[in-house]
Amino acid sequence: MNEYRTGAFTLPGEAGYEKLTLEMAKKWGADVIRDSDGTKLSPEIVEAGYKIYSTICIIREHNAFAAAHPDAQQQTFLSSDPCLAVADTLNIAPLDGYFDEQFQLNDSPDALPFWQVWDRTANRLVPSDQWMYQDGAVRIRGCVPYHRYTVSFLAWRVWEEINMYNHTTNHWESEHLRQLDPRHPLAWEYLKGWLKDWCRDNPDTSVVRLTSLFYNFVWIFGSDLRRRTRFVDWASYDFTVSPAALRAFEKEYGYALTAEDFINKGKLQATHRPPTAPKRDYMDFIQRFVAEKAGELVRIIHAAGKQAYVFYDDSWVGMEPCGKYFASIGFDGLIKCVFSGFECRLCAGAQVPVHELRFHPYLFPVGLGGLPTFAEGGRPEKDAIAYWLHVRRALARQSVDRIGLGGYLHLTVGQDAFNDAIEEMGIAFRRLKALHACGAPAALPITVAVLHTWGALRSWTLSGHFHETDGNILIHINEALSGLPVKVKFISFEDVKNGALADADVLINAGRAGDAWSGGDAWKDPALISEITRFVYAGGSLIGAGEPSAVPCGDTRFALAPILGVDQDDGAYACHQPWAFEAEEAPFFVADQALGATPGIRLIAPDTRVLRAQNGVPALTLHSFGQGKAAYFGGFSYSPEAARMLLELLLYLTGTDGRAAGLTDCPAAECAWFPASHALVIMNNQDAPCEVAVTLPEKTLRARLEANEMVFLND
Amino acid sequence: MNEYRTGAFTLPGEAGYEKLTLEMAKKWGADVIRDSDGTKLSPEIVEAGYKIYSTICIIREHNAFAAAHPDAQQQTFLSSDPCLAVADTLNIAPLDGYFDEQFQLNDSPDALPFWQVWDRTANRLVPSDQWMYQDGAVRIRGCVPYHRYTVSFLAWRVWEEINMYNHTTNHWESEHLRQLDPRHPLAWEYLKGWLKDWCRDNPDTSVVRLTSLFYNFVWIFGSDLRRRTRFVDWASYDFTVSPAALRAFEKEYGYALTAEDFINKGKLQATHRPPTAPKRDYMDFIQRFVAEKAGELVRIIHAAGKQAYVFYDDSWVGMEPCGKYFASIGFDGLIKCVFSGFECRLCAGAQVPVHELRFHPYLFPVGLGGLPTFAEGGRPEKDAIAYWLHVRRALARQSVDRIGLGGYLHLTVGQDAFNDAIEEMGIAFRRLKALHACGAPAALPITVAVLHTWGALRSWTLSGHFHETDGNILIHINEALSGLPVKVKFISFEDVKNGALADADVLINAGRAGDAWSGGDAWKDPALISEITRFVYAGGSLIGAGEPSAVPCGDTRFALAPILGVDQDDGAYACHQPWAFEAEEAPFFVADQALGATPGIRLIAPDTRVLRAQNGVPALTLHSFGQGKAAYFGGFSYSPEAARMLLELLLYLTGTDGRAAGLTDCPAAECAWFPASHALVIMNNQDAPCEVAVTLPEKTLRARLEANEMVFLND
Repeated sequence: MNEYRTGAFTLPGEAGYEKLTLEMAKKWGADVIRDSDGTKLSPEIVEAGYKIYSTICIIREHNAFAAAHPDAQQQTFLSSDPCLAVADTLNIAPLDGYFDEQFQLNDSPDALPFWQVWDRTANRLVPSDQWMYQDGAVRIRGCVPYHRYTVSFLAWRVWEEINMYNHTTNHWESEHLRQLDPRHPLAWEYLKGWLKDWCRDNPDTSVVRLTSLFYNFVWIFGSDLRRRTRFVDWASYDFTVSPAALRAFEKEYGYALTAEDFINKGKLQATHRPPTAPKRDYMDFIQRFVAEKAGELVRIIHAAGKQAYVFYDDSWVGMEPCGKYFASIGFDGLIKCVFSGFECRLCAGAQVPVHELRFHPYLFPVGLGGLPTFAEGGRPEKDAIAYWLHVRRALARQSVDRIGLGGYLHLTVGQDAFNDAIEEMGIAFRRLKALHACGAPAALPITVAVLHTWGALRSWTLSGHFHETDGNILIHINEALSGLPVKVKFISFEDVKNGALADADVLINAGRAGDAWSGGDAWKDPALISEITRFVYAGGSLIGAGEPSAVPCGDTRFALAPILGVDQDDGAYACHQPWAFEAEEAPFFVADQALGATPGIRLIAPDTRVLRAQNGVPALTLHSFGQGKAAYFGGFSYSPEAARMLLELLLYLTGTDGRAAGLTDCPAAECAWFPASHALVIMNNQDAPCEVAVTLPEKTLRARLEANEMVFLND
Repeated sequence: MNEYRTGAFTLPGEAGYEKLTLEMAKKWGADVIRDSDGTKLSPEIVEAGYKIYSTICIIREHNAFAAAHPDAQQQTFLSSDPCLAVADTLNIAPLDGYFDEQFQLNDSPDALPFWQVWDRTANRLVPSDQWMYQDGAVRIRGCVPYHRYTVSFLAWRVWEEINMYNHTTNHWESEHLRQLDPRHPLAWEYLKGWLKDWCRDNPDTSVVRLTSLFYNFVWIFGSDLRRRTRFVDWASYDFTVSPAALRAFEKEYGYALTAEDFINKGKLQATHRPPTAPKRDYMDFIQRFVAEKAGELVRIIHAAGKQAYVFYDDSWVGMEPCGKYFASIGFDGLIKCVFSGFECRLCAGAQVPVHELRFHPYLFPVGLGGLPTFAEGGRPEKDAIAYWLHVRRALARQSVDRIGLGGYLHLTVGQDAFNDAIEEMGIAFRRLKALHACGAPAALPITVAVLHTWGALRSWTLSGHFHETDGNILIHINEALSGLPVKVKFISFEDVKNGALADADVLINAGRAGDAWSGGDAWKDPALISEITRFVYAGGSLIGAGEPSAVPCGDTRFALAPILGVDQDDGAYACHQPWAFEAEEAPFFVADQALGATPGIRLIAPDTRVLRAQNGVPALTLHSFGQGKAAYFGGFSYSPEAARMLLELLLYLTGTDGRAAGLTDCPAAECAWFPASHALVIMNNQDAPCEVAVTLPEKTLRARLEANEMVFLND
């Protein structure tokens, strides 16, 4: 077992705790020591013989430069809250309701031409000669009484958002850090010079750990603590905007973006919503800019003889690892913090030499949700194991190169249970990695294509972590898929029309009516519908979940309803009676706790088979269609049992014998069979022991597993 | 009390039960004896000195004429179920899935030009040269593979629907009755002659009870018992259609209706959905036709020295009592069967000399829902009292002229509890009627305007009885309003723009997104929104319930959200955090059981007060807006306590002292104060005794009431 005790582990060191750092490096088998946001490494650590990662947030910690060049700071479009006109004139103070430590009006001559005033009641742009800006307020003339007006404006973002989060949530009291826009020529020259100097001044650093690049995900604070966070989207592009960016866009694309392209009636353009065509253009424009600038940084780092890893979080906007331009940047490694299996697959699939996971919990008194982890009342080992159960099943399918932790190492003192758990995870990870190195685990001949607006750009993730998006049915399905022995790809509606179903066996569409995952207006396209109809009719399979393919203009609410055999009554079926049904026995394992009912679901075909119903609403159905089959889930909440149900459904739909990849006889247990190594990995995903028999094509193996245990059997 | 024992009561007599008929006439104080569908009166009854109502269904029971003139039968548009094309050609048998005893294809040269074939996948009309009809099937050429096609066609309706219902539900076995279309010239001459003869041959009949006129509400049966009723709408106009009607419409309106104006992608145009402009035109066209033809019948009846009453049910389409043309028909009386208070108010408000209620249960073995009433296992007195509790509170506000029953009188034998209950209701009704005759009950200075698509045309009712529409929040509110001491009017969106709010104190909009009650696309009109905004800002009140003013294109989901202070997240608020809240104490009585949560409701203003929440979703809120106030109900289920809550909310919103109309101290008890008579009526609406104190402006009266009791106190 000693062969698995060391290597491929990144430890967060901490100056002032040199002895602890070296002890823990030994216990956890670290080969790398890193610093973290808020911690430093001392010479004693740096010179202890470990490879060193140094964390840099390139756009932050340049307050002196920002003070000297305030126009080099980053910006965003904001909209005032709507104000009611009760007379001919109306005054609006645009920033009312926003956090004034985060935003300042950009009322420069450069920015004002981009401001807009809207009559939101009439959905009408107010001509610019009807309003004027003066001293922090907009005065509108010629108002229609009892209409509501808004001002769209540019604002400087004067507090880097991650720093702002740590101050407001974790009571940091240091200076507020500002952030520079790499699009500003002076700032960019300054940042490059700064990085060159930094590389020169840190000879012991082997890996520059960029955390991350330039533009943070969108996080808009309000002035009122009852709504401190007004808007947060892990994948929105609003924070990339500036007059310079808008002018460059117009020059390249031949048309101008306006404030309303971002403000969108005050709703902004969240990743969960289908993008407008201009937003798609703008995203591509930003992605190319980010890749180009990031490439310059990487070249500076390489020129200094160091490697460049990027941490995929925080200021990551525009560098999606599955995007078209990521590989061109030339990073040496990608580091992804993970709570879940889908995040592991997202990292593992990126085109980059080294894939590293940063495990949770972060070594910090409280977690992202504000609950204690290492603080009084926390149980960090419980958290760590809970995340590990999600991550290891994905690692059993596709390995990464490294794992590690982050934060304040001194918090581990006295946390023996946590420290032991991490030690065990390190060993287990290295064993899994070694198995993968000898040959891939057996997989079933099933390719699952997950269909949504974003396609491959948003492979695995919707935006953000599981707990940030768990109101979306798709993330539960993605999490289940992350550990199943099937091939998974993420395709867009355009991809379908371009032949992406050719190598697919099962198509999944799962979302809420009108969102980016269900697809919204994309379903107005008959070519899309008929191609999927052809696919299933010819023998393919379809899984719909939630409100799949929902569109307002069809003769059914779900464009794919004729295939699914169910539709949703949003009121349009008024006076139409649905087919009566009785639930029948399921031909596969059903995880009842994972199911849910979507309101208004009804049968629209007499041959739809209802396997489960909740309060009279079908919750799980099957429908044959031509040579193919379709299944519908009203709800799907991830659990080990839900993943097993999904696996069995895939086997049923495709008529596949699951034993080729090994099949446990216990829904809460999973396995991975590595034929090249003759090794079987069995994972008990429940918090109680179980006896498991695993059926392989030519034999059955048995084991008794403790709660949460993973065992490695050799044939 | 003897003065209230007789009069204003219509008894269903039954030949063969002459002694019973006369005994029950005495017990219940009848002054009129009627026949019913399925019963006859014998000379012994007819000549017993009572006024006689004779029931006629004018378009039915002419099978010989129908056989001789099959083209005089009624019709409808139907759509085939969608069929999938998998090749270039497709055959569709249009009537597949419909009940072949109800429908026959109308493939006459007169009808075929109105048939249509649609590509439902592409939402495209298929040119007529791409399909042909032959021998019961349509053959389509040039199909797009994997698109779905439908045939819209005219069908003869060869079984009168009420007769069909009685056969299929109550196992009648007599000849299937057909129905004639009064638009057919020969049929119309025949029917008039038949009515003249009938009047001549029935000299003892004083009132011809038309049940009802020409066109039944829409009731479409399917061939499969798992979906016997495919579509049923108590207020749809599909059954009025014919090539002759379509040609007459085109001649008058200058544009032609097509099958799709009726079929509407297979959804038809249910009353619960906002109508298209052509449907509005067509309804007016039919209403004028029905009024004109009904007027001719009334004149024939009057010429024979009889009165003409109309029963408002079954073949009533086009004669809405609150419609523009009803009064012009010249009926002498309107008879409405009632389960509920709102039906009582609907009848009482019609412009006609005599208003009569037919109480439920109908004297029949089973009720409308199929459960036993007079059959084994039934408790008809319980049913009667339950309906009476609803009806009497409406009668306390606005009286009618008469009450009565219908059905098979012999079923009352041995039903002493039922017979006694009806006797008591007769007495109570006559006492209430006498009080109204002396002077109206005290009412509060509050005018409530209920706002929906149909306005006054659908006053009180949505379409059909309470139990047929109880999935709609508005019918619960209407039922509550029917017994409250306030003025109620029903207004349309056009009415609002034409000044209908001038005399309104409280505006109510209650429905589901996109339905006729919420309003759907009507809310795209800024003039509507700003007029309501002005109304509330200036001091008016607004109550929204369910998904009020929901519209897809605004910057809020509810057009009135800024007034209500709440909005609904249908996904468009993705990443936007709502205002946090804590529920606070309500300033009025809250009937918790009556509340419910509408999914996605969130605060959009910090000053919205949440009085109740369910699972974190606001269920009852208040919001001040300018000088006015608004309230929002996520759910509202009618109960006596819910009615009390609504009353107290109206008092709170308008700052009214409720004592002017008398205010009980018990939510389950109501009262009506008749100042001219110095009489107080107290109703205990609960199934248990209660002690009630009623506060009037100058005194407080007390009484102890038995379960369900109504008492009459004199000051």
